[in-house]
Amino acid sequence: MATEASVAKQYVDPKITIVGAGPGDPDLISIKGIKALKHANVILYDALVDERLLDYAPQETIKVYVGNPSGDENFSQDVVNQLMVDYALNFGHVVRLKGGDLFVFGRGYEELDYAASYSIETAIVPGISSAISVPGLQGIPVTHRGLSESLWILSGTDSEGNLSPELQDAVRSSATVVVLLGFERLPQIVAYYQKAGKGRLPAAVIQNGSMSNEKTAIGLVNTIVEVAEEQGIDNTGPVLLIFGATVALHHGFQHINQFFALQEYHDQQ
Amino acid sequence: MATEASVAKQYVDPKITIVGAGPGDPDLISIKGIKALKHANVILYDALVDERLLDYAPQETIKVYVGNPSGDENFSQDVVNQLMVDYALNFGHVVRLKGGDLFVFGRGYEELDYAASYSIETAIVPGISSAISVPGLQGIPVTHRGLSESLWILSGTDSEGNLSPELQDAVRSSATVVVLLGFERLPQIVAYYQKAGKGRLPAAVIQNGSMSNEKTAIGLVNTIVEVAEEQGIDNTGPVLLIFGATVALHHGFQHINQFFALQEYHDQQ
Repeated sequence: MATEASVAKQYVDPKITIVGAGPGDPDLISIKGIKALKHANVILYDALVDERLLDYAPQETIKVYVGNPSGDENFSQDVVNQLMVDYALNFGHVVRLKGGDLFVFGRGYEELDYAASYSIETAIVPGISSAISVPGLQGIPVTHRGLSESLWILSGTDSEGNLSPELQDAVRSSATVVVLLGFERLPQIVAYYQKAGKGRLPAAVIQNGSMSNEKTAIGLVNTIVEVAEEQGIDNTGPVLLIFGATVALHHGFQHINQFFALQEYHDQQ
Repeated sequence: MATEASVAKQYVDPKITIVGAGPGDPDLISIKGIKALKHANVILYDALVDERLLDYAPQETIKVYVGNPSGDENFSQDVVNQLMVDYALNFGHVVRLKGGDLFVFGRGYEELDYAASYSIETAIVPGISSAISVPGLQGIPVTHRGLSESLWILSGTDSEGNLSPELQDAVRSSATVVVLLGFERLPQIVAYYQKAGKGRLPAAVIQNGSMSNEKTAIGLVNTIVEVAEEQGIDNTGPVLLIFGATVALHHGFQHINQFFALQEYHDQQ
């Protein structure tokens, strides 16, 4: 395959494949994603992508780091879109390798749409969503019979940069609520839950989910800011917030139950 | 590897790995899932799993079909749990291969919990969720800047077999709503949306998403029951319902816009 790809091409057949790399663990990419990487002339990859995935591509594949398009001014979404199209027109098959699943705040459609506006052939390889898999890997199912029968996934910040107004509805619902891109808003979200009388609802914060440097905080709405701080969770890697009864299934929650049972016992004395 | 696995073992080291196979396309399983299959002594697989995945396992691996645990009385969840544990205690590494992602109505935690009650070592390999990937593969992003900033995933039926009461809240929210296991309830869900004044909201129904026999119906809340019937969608394979503005991004929606623009023009004459 390496030999085939290294042959200089006289005619370039542009194609863009957008691949979701999953939550972080490089083994959580799909077989289909690996097949795309093996046939890539160019790979444009995100800050959230594990660089070991690049080894699946032929050696002569051009590998281009494009930072974090939603947070890095040097690689705005417009710049990434343009790079993607330019590389496809000049080199052939571009694989746009993105952390996550592509479609939950992943801007996958924006990139597809841009490629289509140049009449470039596109393909999609979805990834494993961190919103579902990261809690699951920690033993927190996002739904569970008798505890939670739905899942509401939100962003902490809306596209204007404000606290998402839908969060006010979400905290009043009985859905398991997963908030992406919301760690900086945690105190405000906690305040919403407390206002709704849900200060004792189980809550979790997970940073770098599925990766070797994963950090997890398990608590209640009332304690979660403090527990997250104790666990050293910060904004240097992707952080996910989970609110809902199923958090109580986490093995670390038993300890919290005992603590509160004891506290209530003392309060009653 | 085949030779190694075929050597009769005097001592069995029980282990259960629960693997999500993804939405249907066998190439959408993860590398980690494949690695588990390659080291399986026994595979227990679902009705929704593509049998080609079994070929990744050594020839002497025991492959056991366990139907659809949520719909087949012969393979109730209790029976599957017991088989999983029995095989692990007798044969070693059991891979429980399930369609979907494991945790969105996937009962993955129930199986983990049962295995843990026998002190059997467990591992989790999440899968790609159909709730996000199936719309995405059809060009319907579940979130999209300016159109939808959250995703609410529900089951059509609650654990008691009734129409999920949370659907009434979901139809009033501005989230993209994805309903799994809800095709039989489509007329009732449509009635909820109409009652909320959302008859013109874009809606889609997708059967056998990501598979070669995929069927898609694109319309509005007011027309979706009829369009789904025209497309021959039925309950013989997994069906997913999507309600929200992002459905209008599907290439088939342009046609609907033109139809309604024309109709409004005539109404005004």
